[in-house]
Amino acid sequence: MKRALEGVRVLDFSHLLQGPYATQMLGDLGADIIKIERRGTGDDYRYWTFQNFRVGGTESPCYLAFNRNKRSLALDLKKAEAKEIIYRLAETSDIVVENFRPGVMKKLGFGYEDLKKINPKIIYCSATGYGQDGPYVTRPGQDLLIQSLSGIASITGRRNDPPTPLGTGLADQLGAHHIVYGLLAALYYREKTGIGQKIEVNLFHCLIAHQLQEFVTVLNAGRNFERPASGIGHPGIGAPFGIYKTSDGYVCISVNPIKKLAEVLEDEGLVEFDDPQVLFDKRDELFYRIESSTVKKPTAYWVEKMLERDMWCSEVKTHLEVEQDPQARHLQAFTTFRHPTAGEVKTVNIAVKFSETPGGIDRHPPMVGEHNEEILREIGFLPEEIESFKQNNVI
Amino acid sequence: MKRALEGVRVLDFSHLLQGPYATQMLGDLGADIIKIERRGTGDDYRYWTFQNFRVGGTESPCYLAFNRNKRSLALDLKKAEAKEIIYRLAETSDIVVENFRPGVMKKLGFGYEDLKKINPKIIYCSATGYGQDGPYVTRPGQDLLIQSLSGIASITGRRNDPPTPLGTGLADQLGAHHIVYGLLAALYYREKTGIGQKIEVNLFHCLIAHQLQEFVTVLNAGRNFERPASGIGHPGIGAPFGIYKTSDGYVCISVNPIKKLAEVLEDEGLVEFDDPQVLFDKRDELFYRIESSTVKKPTAYWVEKMLERDMWCSEVKTHLEVEQDPQARHLQAFTTFRHPTAGEVKTVNIAVKFSETPGGIDRHPPMVGEHNEEILREIGFLPEEIESFKQNNVI
Repeated sequence: MKRALEGVRVLDFSHLLQGPYATQMLGDLGADIIKIERRGTGDDYRYWTFQNFRVGGTESPCYLAFNRNKRSLALDLKKAEAKEIIYRLAETSDIVVENFRPGVMKKLGFGYEDLKKINPKIIYCSATGYGQDGPYVTRPGQDLLIQSLSGIASITGRRNDPPTPLGTGLADQLGAHHIVYGLLAALYYREKTGIGQKIEVNLFHCLIAHQLQEFVTVLNAGRNFERPASGIGHPGIGAPFGIYKTSDGYVCISVNPIKKLAEVLEDEGLVEFDDPQVLFDKRDELFYRIESSTVKKPTAYWVEKMLERDMWCSEVKTHLEVEQDPQARHLQAFTTFRHPTAGEVKTVNIAVKFSETPGGIDRHPPMVGEHNEEILREIGFLPEEIESFKQNNVI
Repeated sequence: MKRALEGVRVLDFSHLLQGPYATQMLGDLGADIIKIERRGTGDDYRYWTFQNFRVGGTESPCYLAFNRNKRSLALDLKKAEAKEIIYRLAETSDIVVENFRPGVMKKLGFGYEDLKKINPKIIYCSATGYGQDGPYVTRPGQDLLIQSLSGIASITGRRNDPPTPLGTGLADQLGAHHIVYGLLAALYYREKTGIGQKIEVNLFHCLIAHQLQEFVTVLNAGRNFERPASGIGHPGIGAPFGIYKTSDGYVCISVNPIKKLAEVLEDEGLVEFDDPQVLFDKRDELFYRIESSTVKKPTAYWVEKMLERDMWCSEVKTHLEVEQDPQARHLQAFTTFRHPTAGEVKTVNIAVKFSETPGGIDRHPPMVGEHNEEILREIGFLPEEIESFKQNNVI
């Protein structure tokens, strides 16, 4: 055993981002992820791109990002034989993950109660936009919508702009982390007691939970945050907390003693504002005043001056600059894998370092049904049965 | 055993957000979290507020958010007797979490190698801004700085505004999720093999990992995303993906077939743009054109019309509106706990639902040193020893 989750088998019905990112995190640590895909076209995320870019001309960067360390079994889930296959897989699986709309798995015969009959110790995770029931049960649960509904867009960006979503997914990734949290806790519990269970995660609650300290503030104070007019980076924090223009780009200035800031900016008058309430109330005025100093010199000048004084500041980098960042390189934050059609693919390395069981990329993101025969053989189907599955368009 | 992590003891040296949120997630599932705090003042996060608001006039909403389900042991870690106490606690702990700057724990005598000698099966997690070494090792690792350095600010917000950070912490929460991921995987591995280990998590790598699909796109395409001039919600996605003004607020319109959108907006000319490349290239022009329709009617009108057609859309809510949201209420996304000085505190409920081992709030966030005597008695110190710790200002 070299990876932490070796020997754990995950029957993964999930698609798009939330579920696949979660199962990839398990696969990165050695779990055997069997990705059940739609026969023919596979996971819809294979067709999702940004700017219509495809790696190697054919592969979705989004799909490639979230499906390494998995094997693909492509089935027509509505065929009777698919049921036979899934039930046999369930016998030897530890975990099931699915993110269909509520009710779909049950209708297919693959609900928790169905699979629990076959494997009483199974741990079964259903991930949805808003939970298994309730007034939003039929609503679309897409990431941008959840950012809008959960309040986070309302506190991001500037007062005179509309509410601003994050420039990446947010609820999906947080949903993935909560799936991992729930599954691994349930796995530990099962090791101790032999008891499996059903776990439910939904994007909406996850994004509310992300804003824990904001909600504790707002709900107990009884008043909302307001987006600042300037670029202050949090609606509850005073100046200088923000990103400021410099003569050649931007500099990030986080929480800092005003005295030190006044000294670096050579604007001694700033010290008159050195009171938490004033720094909050006059945050917009102060933002523009500070920026009137920062625009005079280049970013490197400010970063050097401030770091010298142990102040909280940094550059503001683009993605290509992050790739070249000396600390990112030191951490080996980026790596590559080989893919049969896309070739050498650059990706982000596993973020957690384990002294005894380091994670690793052992498999490229699979082609649709790439492991059909391998998996079916493993669970005991005979060559002639596999051939008949093919003939009957089951696989 | 009623909670998934009952019986797991966590020796928690962490402070501020990243570590405490992680250990709270473990505590929410029943782990025994012993929060080691600085004697007298405690966790610095007790003094962090938004808008200088304090719950019940005295308690930091930020501290209250991330410290339920813990017990506090307040020590002067530099005293010789503190070492005796920590070493004895380490004997019966499963997990250690710390987020001091690199080297601090070792200097105190509480590094991984030190505690491993006492308890060879210990799982020890160090969380930092940028890792244990490398060119940024002495740099401040605060959330806003990490948002700036990791590229996420550069792709959020509008082209003519500076890069925009999220209106909440981001790297800290993701760091917390990665700590939980690493610890629970290591805990499972230890159940199987009896082997403990050291785990390292850093905010910078976690926030890079969050942008997995963006990095796979940018690094393989060899070109950066550019922030849109309009309010399109992702720099790689075409119109209509964004938040639009209405006659009384805003509406979020995610990915949708243009034909349906043209119909609802009564702007049939929109269908001429129905090509993925055009929707991307002309996303700003389209944004303003769509907004010129949405401003004519109220939000409720648009949401109703679009949901009727199974389109991806939603309202855009403030935090106080989220509290009243019918689905949030259905999910019981919010709850309260009683606190000795702050009274009844509103907070966010546990986001993951477990059929067999539901999480719960069993303890209020502790006062500094609230459980000193209880914990010291549990690990076998005699009343006179505890008295002497008090006299010598150890506790």
